Amino acid sequence: MSKSYFMPTRVIMGNNCVVENSKMFSTYGKNAMIVTGKSSAKINGAEADVVEVLKAVGINYLIYDQVMSNPTVSCVFEGADYGRDNAVDFIIAIGGGSPLDAAKAMALIIGSNLSEDNLFSGNYTEALPLIAIPTTAGTGSEVTQYSIITNDVLETKIGIKTHLIFPKVALLDAKYMMSLSVVNTVNTTIDALSHAVEGMISIKASGISDSLATRSIRMIMGCVPTMMEVLEEEDSTLFTLEMREKFLYASTLAGMVIAQTGTTAVHAMGYALTYNKQIDHGRANGLLIGEFLRFTEKGEPKLVARVLEAMDIRRVDVYIDMMRKLFGELEPISNEEIRTFSAKAILAGNISNCPVIPTVADLEAIFMASFGVK
Amino acid sequence: MSKSYFMPTRVIMGNNCVVENSKMFSTYGKNAMIVTGKSSAKINGAEADVVEVLKAVGINYLIYDQVMSNPTVSCVFEGADYGRDNAVDFIIAIGGGSPLDAAKAMALIIGSNLSEDNLFSGNYTEALPLIAIPTTAGTGSEVTQYSIITNDVLETKIGIKTHLIFPKVALLDAKYMMSLSVVNTVNTTIDALSHAVEGMISIKASGISDSLATRSIRMIMGCVPTMMEVLEEEDSTLFTLEMREKFLYASTLAGMVIAQTGTTAVHAMGYALTYNKQIDHGRANGLLIGEFLRFTEKGEPKLVARVLEAMDIRRVDVYIDMMRKLFGELEPISNEEIRTFSAKAILAGNISNCPVIPTVADLEAIFMASFGVK
Repeated sequence: MSKSYFMPTRVIMGNNCVVENSKMFSTYGKNAMIVTGKSSAKINGAEADVVEVLKAVGINYLIYDQVMSNPTVSCVFEGADYGRDNAVDFIIAIGGGSPLDAAKAMALIIGSNLSEDNLFSGNYTEALPLIAIPTTAGTGSEVTQYSIITNDVLETKIGIKTHLIFPKVALLDAKYMMSLSVVNTVNTTIDALSHAVEGMISIKASGISDSLATRSIRMIMGCVPTMMEVLEEEDSTLFTLEMREKFLYASTLAGMVIAQTGTTAVHAMGYALTYNKQIDHGRANGLLIGEFLRFTEKGEPKLVARVLEAMDIRRVDVYIDMMRKLFGELEPISNEEIRTFSAKAILAGNISNCPVIPTVADLEAIFMASFGVK
Repeated sequence: MSKSYFMPTRVIMGNNCVVENSKMFSTYGKNAMIVTGKSSAKINGAEADVVEVLKAVGINYLIYDQVMSNPTVSCVFEGADYGRDNAVDFIIAIGGGSPLDAAKAMALIIGSNLSEDNLFSGNYTEALPLIAIPTTAGTGSEVTQYSIITNDVLETKIGIKTHLIFPKVALLDAKYMMSLSVVNTVNTTIDALSHAVEGMISIKASGISDSLATRSIRMIMGCVPTMMEVLEEEDSTLFTLEMREKFLYASTLAGMVIAQTGTTAVHAMGYALTYNKQIDHGRANGLLIGEFLRFTEKGEPKLVARVLEAMDIRRVDVYIDMMRKLFGELEPISNEEIRTFSAKAILAGNISNCPVIPTVADLEAIFMASFGVK
């Protein structure tokens, strides 16, 4: 079966890159909508930089800053209506995964003239151009064709996947991450790690995606000892700009990977922990990867050895120990919860990306070993 | 200064990928022009595969198979006229760098309605969609925005560079390379190596391009011992499909790199050897890289150390010895030739990509040391 690689987003990176590339914004029109959350883009300075640039190059703009965590269908239609009513030509998304994913959905709703009934139809024709400015380093949404939206009626999350919503441009400036808390930084970075690791394990991995994944894994694993120290000190200023740049680039590399490979059972299982136990997404994945690798190793030892080589360790145990130290005390999970979560996770589409397809019993065993449940 | 990464070509790879992705061709229209050289695409089976696919999905096609090595302006206009007269919707390029580069120019001439007077003007608006099927593993043209055309009036080569000519799709199947000669295989692979190495050295290198370059270098350097054996045996069948796949993917990765970074003094110097001494392009670059690294090392030791790490060697000497063994006896070059070549090379645009900018005297010293001239 042939493999493929496609990632058409232009990635621009470096200190002050938003302001340095002000002319680029004009390529996409005269009327922009900034899409962001309520406060973080104001605190970290990203919104101010964008506004300064738009004023300087004479682009009209409006701001939709009502994106919540886990953006809902109502939210993305509210934003899309606002943009459509004001005839915006393009969207500038600023924030973590939520604003970026919401903005992608808005761009698609306006471009393909979608109603709430056909948002998830897959019948998409066009999307407004989107410029993505990530202010967390984890989701990689700035370089993917995915948007995850919460369907508040069905009480579930649904993924939109279309090449139309690859951002036209991703602007990566780590200075917007300087105000992120220690725990948030660690969790999002380990989310990126899980993307890179799952991307190497996925049956859709290719030589191209592996080269990106390998570097992402190496960059993040090299920072784990520092993460532990900073967690101990509880002082986020110990994460230097240089280190935050590493997290950011590693996260974008990992995003480029999952744009090709999708994720695996780890994400399927992690989602259950996040929805039902409010365990942070990155933390959940980070805690599950180890036992997932151990499970996969039985059938695909060479593949897992390549992941371990990228991690610069010899045995899966070493990774598991590192994550236990990094994440501290584990959340208690009951056997019944594990049965429920496994039954749900086995139905997820990304299970089929695993080179060794797990059974429900395998997922239960991975959950139990990961959380020390007997 | 901000760095950027952009490579919008969809890369599809794997055995039989042309036939497996037959439906994809219909995306680009009903009338195709196949652009290729006189014979190789017929010998290696690529043309037959494409014709079979086009017939199967009902696409009309015509074939322009008059592209020579180092395609000329007259050639690309002859092909473009043929395509335009027959109202083709898209172009399928099959071959090494020459047919691919020629097809890119034709796509641009038709799409932007160019005349011979403004082919090199830079004022381009559009290009026909292009599907690239490389049948050598070296230039990386299938994933770049470059087309090098020989201006037969000025007796010089001119590079066209525009994002419009990134192929829409690159189809990588190493089976088309099985009939390449041993020497041709080695030379083109070392050309790819020079792209990856120069891409890491270039001031335009980023974390993204470095991740691709590192893997490309590692893949190729891992094959050098086998190349030596096969050269000894003079038997190209000793290059297995698996090995040719490595060469091909390494070459595409290196193409993705130079699409970002451009090349450096090595290519500027190598061109002089190719034009004036008919030394193969890959061979010329391969022989020059070592001394170029040694020169760069003085000012940028850490950077060169990272290249050597990717090569899995400790010292530049080791690389130089390997290339001497691989390429055998060196061509004699006179001091006068070296002065002429250096005076020309110093004017090349890619000199400015070097982190340590060489003087003419530096280029002369690199030429002399590379070819054992005293």
